[in-house]
Amino acid sequence: MESIYIGILGLGTVGSGVLNTLEKNRTIIEEDLGSPIRIKRALVKNVNGYGHLNIPSDLTITDDINDILDDPDISIVVEVMGGIHPAKEFILEALRRGKSVVSANKDLVSLHGPEIVKTAVENAADFMCEASVGGGIPILLPLQKSLKANQITEIVGIINGTTNYILTEMTEKNMSYRDALTNAQKLGFAEADPTADVGGFDAARKIAILSSIGFRANVTSDDVSVEGIEAIDSKDIQFAKEFGYVIKLLAVARQQPEGIAAAVYPAFVPQDHPLAAVRGAYNAVYIVGNAVDDIMFYGKGAGSYPTASAVLGDVLEIAAHLHHHTTGKNAWLKENNPAQFMDPNFVLSSYYFRLIVDNAPGVLSEISQCFAQDGVSIKTMWQRGNLEETAEIVMVVYPAGDTAIQNVRARLQNLNCVREIANVLRVLGESGNDER
Amino acid sequence: MESIYIGILGLGTVGSGVLNTLEKNRTIIEEDLGSPIRIKRALVKNVNGYGHLNIPSDLTITDDINDILDDPDISIVVEVMGGIHPAKEFILEALRRGKSVVSANKDLVSLHGPEIVKTAVENAADFMCEASVGGGIPILLPLQKSLKANQITEIVGIINGTTNYILTEMTEKNMSYRDALTNAQKLGFAEADPTADVGGFDAARKIAILSSIGFRANVTSDDVSVEGIEAIDSKDIQFAKEFGYVIKLLAVARQQPEGIAAAVYPAFVPQDHPLAAVRGAYNAVYIVGNAVDDIMFYGKGAGSYPTASAVLGDVLEIAAHLHHHTTGKNAWLKENNPAQFMDPNFVLSSYYFRLIVDNAPGVLSEISQCFAQDGVSIKTMWQRGNLEETAEIVMVVYPAGDTAIQNVRARLQNLNCVREIANVLRVLGESGNDER
Repeated sequence: MESIYIGILGLGTVGSGVLNTLEKNRTIIEEDLGSPIRIKRALVKNVNGYGHLNIPSDLTITDDINDILDDPDISIVVEVMGGIHPAKEFILEALRRGKSVVSANKDLVSLHGPEIVKTAVENAADFMCEASVGGGIPILLPLQKSLKANQITEIVGIINGTTNYILTEMTEKNMSYRDALTNAQKLGFAEADPTADVGGFDAARKIAILSSIGFRANVTSDDVSVEGIEAIDSKDIQFAKEFGYVIKLLAVARQQPEGIAAAVYPAFVPQDHPLAAVRGAYNAVYIVGNAVDDIMFYGKGAGSYPTASAVLGDVLEIAAHLHHHTTGKNAWLKENNPAQFMDPNFVLSSYYFRLIVDNAPGVLSEISQCFAQDGVSIKTMWQRGNLEETAEIVMVVYPAGDTAIQNVRARLQNLNCVREIANVLRVLGESGNDER
Repeated sequence: MESIYIGILGLGTVGSGVLNTLEKNRTIIEEDLGSPIRIKRALVKNVNGYGHLNIPSDLTITDDINDILDDPDISIVVEVMGGIHPAKEFILEALRRGKSVVSANKDLVSLHGPEIVKTAVENAADFMCEASVGGGIPILLPLQKSLKANQITEIVGIINGTTNYILTEMTEKNMSYRDALTNAQKLGFAEADPTADVGGFDAARKIAILSSIGFRANVTSDDVSVEGIEAIDSKDIQFAKEFGYVIKLLAVARQQPEGIAAAVYPAFVPQDHPLAAVRGAYNAVYIVGNAVDDIMFYGKGAGSYPTASAVLGDVLEIAAHLHHHTTGKNAWLKENNPAQFMDPNFVLSSYYFRLIVDNAPGVLSEISQCFAQDGVSIKTMWQRGNLEETAEIVMVVYPAGDTAIQNVRARLQNLNCVREIANVLRVLGESGNDER
């Protein structure tokens, strides 16, 4: 069969991983594929900056996208440059010329996925983006193919390695949030400006992509409500432990008859839930389907070689489609299927409250009333009584809707005896559901 | 596009799950596929025995395989009857007539997979068998497609739900092996004759299939060395806990330059290894590839609906191939690629020993010598000294080869002071490797 030629946009961490992995495993890859496969051209910013890479002699480095777009040999374009512009324009133009595209770009796919897929289908080209979620973990392909006979009802992901690393350090080494973040930055797990990670925005992009494929509807990162881990205190971590939980930043998407809800938030996860065992920079995606029940995919969510594994898995799938003349028939994302979102009040959840209150008689009664007025039942409560002026009250309440919890917070805020609502966090149920 | 018609062989637990899932999720399935899909005929032993099922009016039940083989409408045959004969003959004949086949039959695939795949390819038909390993967990498709760019070096599975249920009960409820087995039988998790499960033979079949796909070579269940969980004592479970491990029945396959090794055995798994968190009847497959590093797939390893999810995933993949006229081009198993097996001595492993010895001076020195003579180093040791006649010695040794451990056992056996070698078990390393 005919040789497959690739043009790659970017030779950074992921790009060089793709190059090296293809060289290292060429023998088995070509035997499986039944044809040679080569990276013919690479787009970079500065053609002289790549002396440190082991560039094969038959790979041409260029700083002109047209060298790749105009090359009729190149049938697959791999976009690992990142960012929205000009990645989007390059991808759309490649697709318009009938070239298939593999992208690792979560920012782009979570915002413009449907438009890209539409362009791919119109031009009988493939577009695949396994590496955009969960690094090397095979998740988008199994979600789209293996689980096709299921209605997916829940997707719960630990899909940001930076925050999971920070929370794991806080949990296992009793570190403060600040120290754990500084440590992560020193080790290269967190960026100098960590907002995208610790604020939950990176996870929001990935859950948008997972939801779009799993629920067969267009969910963008703008549709995801986002809460980060900045407010998690060592005390919350300790209380979680004592109550049999571990705190994780979860990306949660649900589909019910009422519609879809997608959110990112830190939550209490029961210690015997499979997501609780996901430590450090590892990622995992937990999925519930109406036939398969609950399954989980686990692995390294980032890194040069794991991400290259996902990129090349897509490349080889497309190469097989090219050999069989079936590109353009395998779209993962629906190009035009608007999502129906549900009222947040349909999503019931158990909650954890940590309050700093006056250490005085009658306080507990006042606080209990704040909950009772909206029918929110207290499941467990714990008060550290001592001789100081203030006391700490921790409680977990039975499942309640968003409005009820907002009302309770507002009432607590207005009580003179409540000095501070230190934290309010959701509690994931044993089943992966929020408890209800 | 043309309607897809299915013939199903068997309407038992899995067959009825397939039927019900297809009915329940028909709308989204047909929308994805772009055509109607129907189960047209079902082969059963007794055509009058299915009144309890909700049989659609357009499904014909028959006890004659020729009704299905001779029906030119039927392009996909789903084999969920189990057993080697006549399932093998039915599958081969369906393939010879150009019908694609989906099978959940691990016994058959682990013994005759290559012959079946050869027949499929020769007749431009597909053969898929996702449900034969790990029930509903997507594992064979991601292993074959998503991880295609990797050399797979290790596959470690908890792929028998019965034994994992028994070991979990022993661990969490301090039950004896006998009580846990009886309990599992009462609950339907273990059969009246539990040998295939507790003896490790079921797991051997599944690891043979995983190895064949992952290592691109023919590994049959006869190539897998097998050790069951019958000899696991509550004491072993307790010592494992104290040392920070949990005992699991593992199916382990490794590929090194020296060749392939595949085995099933109970082992100590570190408590912070992701496999340690796999409880009850759940299954998981942990895979190491030379690009992706370590990943894990987790879910329900059996049951009507999870297994139906896997069967229908295969059916819908083949249906897409039928629409694109590309069946016969997607063989997972290499039809003729004999595996090269390695000398068991290349597989080093850390081991746990539990010995019952005389409570007398000099005993420890004699025992230590048995290890030292083959260069096996003792890592940790624990002796319960009391006033009784015998003492219990527990130790974990540094990685050693098979022959060295056999020699040590033989020498211990010959010592007068050793009353009993109560158990010898392998220890899985933090990385998933046996410790080395």
